[in-house]
Amino acid sequence: MSERTTVGVGMVGYAFMGRVHSQAWRNAGAFFDLPLAPRMAVLAGRSKERTSAAAARLGWADVETDWRELVRRDDVQIVDICTPGDSHAEIAIAALRAGKHVLCEKPLANTVAEAEAMVEAAAGAPGRAMVAFNYRRVPAIALARRLVEEGRLGEIRHVRAQYLQDWIVDPEFPLVWRLQKDKAGSGALGDIGAHIIDTAQFVTGQHVVGVSALTETFVKERPLPESSAGLSGSGGGSATGPVTVDDAALFIGRLSGGALASFEATRFATGRKNALRIEINGSLGSLAFDFEAMNELWVSEGGGGFTRILVTEPDHPYVGAWWPPGHGLGYEHTFTHEIKDFLEAIAEGADPSPSFADGLRVQRVLAAVERSAADSSRYTVVEET
Amino acid sequence: MSERTTVGVGMVGYAFMGRVHSQAWRNAGAFFDLPLAPRMAVLAGRSKERTSAAAARLGWADVETDWRELVRRDDVQIVDICTPGDSHAEIAIAALRAGKHVLCEKPLANTVAEAEAMVEAAAGAPGRAMVAFNYRRVPAIALARRLVEEGRLGEIRHVRAQYLQDWIVDPEFPLVWRLQKDKAGSGALGDIGAHIIDTAQFVTGQHVVGVSALTETFVKERPLPESSAGLSGSGGGSATGPVTVDDAALFIGRLSGGALASFEATRFATGRKNALRIEINGSLGSLAFDFEAMNELWVSEGGGGFTRILVTEPDHPYVGAWWPPGHGLGYEHTFTHEIKDFLEAIAEGADPSPSFADGLRVQRVLAAVERSAADSSRYTVVEET
Amino acid sequence: MSERTTVGVGMVGYAFMGRVHSQAWRNAGAFFDLPLAPRMAVLAGRSKERTSAAAARLGWADVETDWRELVRRDDVQIVDICTPGDSHAEIAIAALRAGKHVLCEKPLANTVAEAEAMVEAAAGAPGRAMVAFNYRRVPAIALARRLVEEGRLGEIRHVRAQYLQDWIVDPEFPLVWRLQKDKAGSGALGDIGAHIIDTAQFVTGQHVVGVSALTETFVKERPLPESSAGLSGSGGGSATGPVTVDDAALFIGRLSGGALASFEATRFATGRKNALRIEINGSLGSLAFDFEAMNELWVSEGGGGFTRILVTEPDHPYVGAWWPPGHGLGYEHTFTHEIKDFLEAIAEGADPSPSFADGLRVQRVLAAVERSAADSSRYTVVEET
Amino acid sequence: MSERTTVGVGMVGYAFMGRVHSQAWRNAGAFFDLPLAPRMAVLAGRSKERTSAAAARLGWADVETDWRELVRRDDVQIVDICTPGDSHAEIAIAALRAGKHVLCEKPLANTVAEAEAMVEAAAGAPGRAMVAFNYRRVPAIALARRLVEEGRLGEIRHVRAQYLQDWIVDPEFPLVWRLQKDKAGSGALGDIGAHIIDTAQFVTGQHVVGVSALTETFVKERPLPESSAGLSGSGGGSATGPVTVDDAALFIGRLSGGALASFEATRFATGRKNALRIEINGSLGSLAFDFEAMNELWVSEGGGGFTRILVTEPDHPYVGAWWPPGHGLGYEHTFTHEIKDFLEAIAEGADPSPSFADGLRVQRVLAAVERSAADSSRYTVVEET
Repeated sequence: MSERTTVGVGMVGYAFMGRVHSQAWRNAGAFFDLPLAPRMAVLAGRSKERTSAAAARLGWADVETDWRELVRRDDVQIVDICTPGDSHAEIAIAALRAGKHVLCEKPLANTVAEAEAMVEAAAGAPGRAMVAFNYRRVPAIALARRLVEEGRLGEIRHVRAQYLQDWIVDPEFPLVWRLQKDKAGSGALGDIGAHIIDTAQFVTGQHVVGVSALTETFVKERPLPESSAGLSGSGGGSATGPVTVDDAALFIGRLSGGALASFEATRFATGRKNALRIEINGSLGSLAFDFEAMNELWVSEGGGGFTRILVTEPDHPYVGAWWPPGHGLGYEHTFTHEIKDFLEAIAEGADPSPSFADGLRVQRVLAAVERSAADSSRYTVVEET
Repeated sequence: MSERTTVGVGMVGYAFMGRVHSQAWRNAGAFFDLPLAPRMAVLAGRSKERTSAAAARLGWADVETDWRELVRRDDVQIVDICTPGDSHAEIAIAALRAGKHVLCEKPLANTVAEAEAMVEAAAGAPGRAMVAFNYRRVPAIALARRLVEEGRLGEIRHVRAQYLQDWIVDPEFPLVWRLQKDKAGSGALGDIGAHIIDTAQFVTGQHVVGVSALTETFVKERPLPESSAGLSGSGGGSATGPVTVDDAALFIGRLSGGALASFEATRFATGRKNALRIEINGSLGSLAFDFEAMNELWVSEGGGGFTRILVTEPDHPYVGAWWPPGHGLGYEHTFTHEIKDFLEAIAEGADPSPSFADGLRVQRVLAAVERSAADSSRYTVVEET
Repeated sequence: MSERTTVGVGMVGYAFMGRVHSQAWRNAGAFFDLPLAPRMAVLAGRSKERTSAAAARLGWADVETDWRELVRRDDVQIVDICTPGDSHAEIAIAALRAGKHVLCEKPLANTVAEAEAMVEAAAGAPGRAMVAFNYRRVPAIALARRLVEEGRLGEIRHVRAQYLQDWIVDPEFPLVWRLQKDKAGSGALGDIGAHIIDTAQFVTGQHVVGVSALTETFVKERPLPESSAGLSGSGGGSATGPVTVDDAALFIGRLSGGALASFEATRFATGRKNALRIEINGSLGSLAFDFEAMNELWVSEGGGGFTRILVTEPDHPYVGAWWPPGHGLGYEHTFTHEIKDFLEAIAEGADPSPSFADGLRVQRVLAAVERSAADSSRYTVVEET
Repeated sequence: MSERTTVGVGMVGYAFMGRVHSQAWRNAGAFFDLPLAPRMAVLAGRSKERTSAAAARLGWADVETDWRELVRRDDVQIVDICTPGDSHAEIAIAALRAGKHVLCEKPLANTVAEAEAMVEAAAGAPGRAMVAFNYRRVPAIALARRLVEEGRLGEIRHVRAQYLQDWIVDPEFPLVWRLQKDKAGSGALGDIGAHIIDTAQFVTGQHVVGVSALTETFVKERPLPESSAGLSGSGGGSATGPVTVDDAALFIGRLSGGALASFEATRFATGRKNALRIEINGSLGSLAFDFEAMNELWVSEGGGGFTRILVTEPDHPYVGAWWPPGHGLGYEHTFTHEIKDFLEAIAEGADPSPSFADGLRVQRVLAAVERSAADSSRYTVVEET
């Protein structure tokens, strides 16, 4: 094992996503036979003090207060971008131009134009570029993909995908960055809608060709925040500001293989915490998944009842590396699997999945949704590359 | 009890719906204190022999082979229409003009024009007119309505309603009347989509104001049937015919109270048998229901988890008349409750719920769905009366 | 159909069990091709007024105030016993001696000696005798039996059966007849424990050979009741009386085929209303059932996940006579199926299942449980005939 | 953070338990503010080569091939024992005598005598001693304990606890060490039965006072193994050997607070993978848990339905340190929590929970189960210290 090449990793951002990416970098090697040995070289953040504290806790060897310095370092071969969407393009393109491999949080960018520039940069660069749609690495989702690929569901007729959260139901919840268009690009649509679009496309092996959409902002004004971390935040005084993104987005559409699909992304589904749900009906069988019970995949074959498969068997995707049957995995492990797949793609010189091109594809669906919503929900064709 | 007025009932049709209506007429009085004593007077069907056999088995005292004769009879005060949608308007209008009370299966009619004529006939007639959206009488659905009405869910933000079946997934399933536009009016849309529209409107107390829709016919040609009964049928030789109705309909829309709603009606959801599902999210709480587990209502309050309420307690709607807690009801009892409510409305001289006007409202949503689907899914406003 | 022989039915008792039996007698013929046509001839109860009112509501043609008169009547060929257990033996034996067929509520009797006398009476009589363990007629339970019989579960290793209710958790709930040993024989043990013993024996095709038991009365004194009906009752003043039966009974044991079994019957399982639950593990597969979701059977084969079978398909036991797939049945239909099977046994001149001998077998397990509980839980062999 | 005292950890054994303990030592500090900074100093195993490979992968700085050397080292303050039960007493006692803190896998020992010696050693030693009943650290189980402690369930009436697995259903599964009495002490009883005894005692705050038991070995002879790791193993040639432990153990009993309890531990529950299930009924409410859905706790209050609490809220035990609501944890995190609690107990100079005395208490219940099973299931009092 000592003969493996070590690759230095530099991560930008240490909030919610930075914490979970760190956990994945720290542990992947203890479970998977990685072709490259990752070294947690450097963490970048704006505040020296806070970045240093985060680095100490999360296991990064050094810190930078400017991501440009991180990108320049010789001991960094992989740049991991965990910042809000408005900085993705700039950092990713700089890193690719500097010859680095790039792992970028989703959505790939805040606009199609940015995403296109990122895909272009990736195409001309020596490094590999991956967008972090981590839910592809839920073992149950990977198993769902396998079942569809093997034809076990037959011809796909229906996809219904929902991503339901409730963390901003309270109108006193403050105006954090995720509710500001200039930072986040969009609201529920880009944050969680992007995940269900990618998941639906990944599992079916098809892509969304057109959509008809409705979006809504239920609470139009919110208190300005004093601080925020992760998904939470604490409200301030009486000052308020406008919510400039959607609270919810609904769209129906068609997939390239002829299926009808419905999508719903909302942060106003009281009682649903992180319910990424997908149900697929094919001519031979069906499947259903809910991330709130992430170790379970429900499968129906031959028109019979749904079987609750506990996706913890050695022959299930990723699972063999972990524990005996019935000993479930958690949210963080989707990132561990992502790191493993990314390092394998780098070692093989192959495009990782999902690539920046996959991320652009999602971005174009998001754009079509916004266009349709602005045009009386008219059916809007998703642009092709 | 012997002092109660007896009302004679005449039923037209004795297939699936006729069987379940008979069961309700036969048993309602054993559980509920009915204000009127129904007498199962006469059953109408085209074949004398088959109608007589059905009458003997189902408990009807007499038979007619022409529904016009049934409508004319003095011993009939209530006409119960259990035929396909293409005959509803004619029978109902004739019965109303003859001074009868009318219970009519759903959808109210095959077109808005017919439904309008029926509403008009009901308005000018002495009899009471009810459309048989039986799912309103599932105790769990009635309880859901009660919770919304009491404000327990707060302001309604989201409705997602689905009616999923799979009985025509097999392309060899024959071209029964429900797959023919001239008989059925539409396919999944009118047959089961009508139920979820009514259920959503009933539970929320709001109405659909506009929709954006997609419809699809997956299997466009099917074997001609030799016979059919209920939902089943047996295929014939090599002759086939075109399917002239939709196999599936998806639509999103807005409710009069500001909620976003999504609807899906399909007969191609492999493994789902009769999954009328509805989930509602409000600012204070949520609820979820699936008819495949019809004795359960799931309710979340205050952002907490969902409670599985077994809707079998004495203080739950309709339930007190039946068995002790935990002893569930079945599909047929929704009709028993319908009969009870209908007889009470007649006795009180009140409009039953759902009235023909409620049925027309659903019909107008169906029409808007069809218009939107034909017009690039453009958002289409539902006509008001 | 008019050529079928009519059989007159006389029912004794019209409380909870009488109501549900009436429903079954009234409706069985509308769904099943019965070999004999039952006629609801006479209802017996002590109060003329109340019995007459019940007869009118439930559909019985005549009344008697002494069950002995009912047994004597020529227009009665079947006697249906719906009284508390202390009168079962006397009525059943008299009816059998009078040449009647007998359907007797469970438990068969309050003692083994009574049950033996009933079996003896049945053996020497021309009539057929059945004990009403209605849960055998839940389609899911009948399907479970079929799967075991076909060998789909392999060699049975484990049975865990529970019957959980909570209707006397409140210490102010009054001392109704079911809590008095002289009327009820025992408490949870005989009332609901009898059901899980019979269900376990029926599904596995094995019998309990020995048990080790604990019983407990949590609330030892209760208010005397003013009245009671069904499972409910209303407390009176300050007068109380001793509870003379068990509140809960737990026992473990061995089945004749080598399986280990655990049983628990309790009326103190807060939040469980009528949870008759059984789980069986075999060398090839497993199954699980809960009456609170009575239309579902969960089956695992080959070590895989559990499939939720919605037991509403035409090829499932009893189901073909009812509605299309996904349209569930309720509690009452278990009795409808019981009546059908009983009439078929009478017509065939065959012993019904469960026979009085099956009822005696359950009685002997109950007796062994009581002996073990009284003897330091020592493993106690169930007597053989 | 740099001012925290570092404590060196030495771990003995690197199979299944060693892997998961390593994961916990490696990550606890990234999520919890630990009072002591653990250093993964040394790993002991018999084979130099294999131990070194494990240490490299799992993150241990050094290796020893004799646990006695590990115990002697000055850079080790904590000894973590992850070996089979037959070596627990010797290693733990030596470590305690050497002044180390000890974390010992469960069951504490293979006999009561050994466990007593361990408790005695712990009592006289400066180090802290903890037994690794990790399921106490499932957030849902810790929440269950909190609810009971707060009196939300009232007086506890019933406990039903099961630990169901199926990994040796196949009679060709080889005779691994867990099936040999000299190594494992007992079979399902000590391996998984110990967990449900501890969990029941922990959640209720009561202890088992007496039991009545049955045990069984379904497959009495198995192929000799060629190798084994974790729970798996691969069979060899035709040579077989006797299974000397139980395959399943059932027992019922009484708790110190008056509740009735049933327990079942089996490795023959086909289709159940790691179903540690517990249901508790109290006079005011109930709860239910199944480790196969470890992020969920089901709670019923006031006799109402069961609420599915997704135990991922910031105010749930341990959860605040991790991710936003709805982002579940996995099996390994129970050990992370264990390490955190252990380090806190060491820092505070307090007895950890569960202590060796708690482990001995479980051991005495196991012994009573074995005595009862050998004595016709007679009710057997659990010895008190």
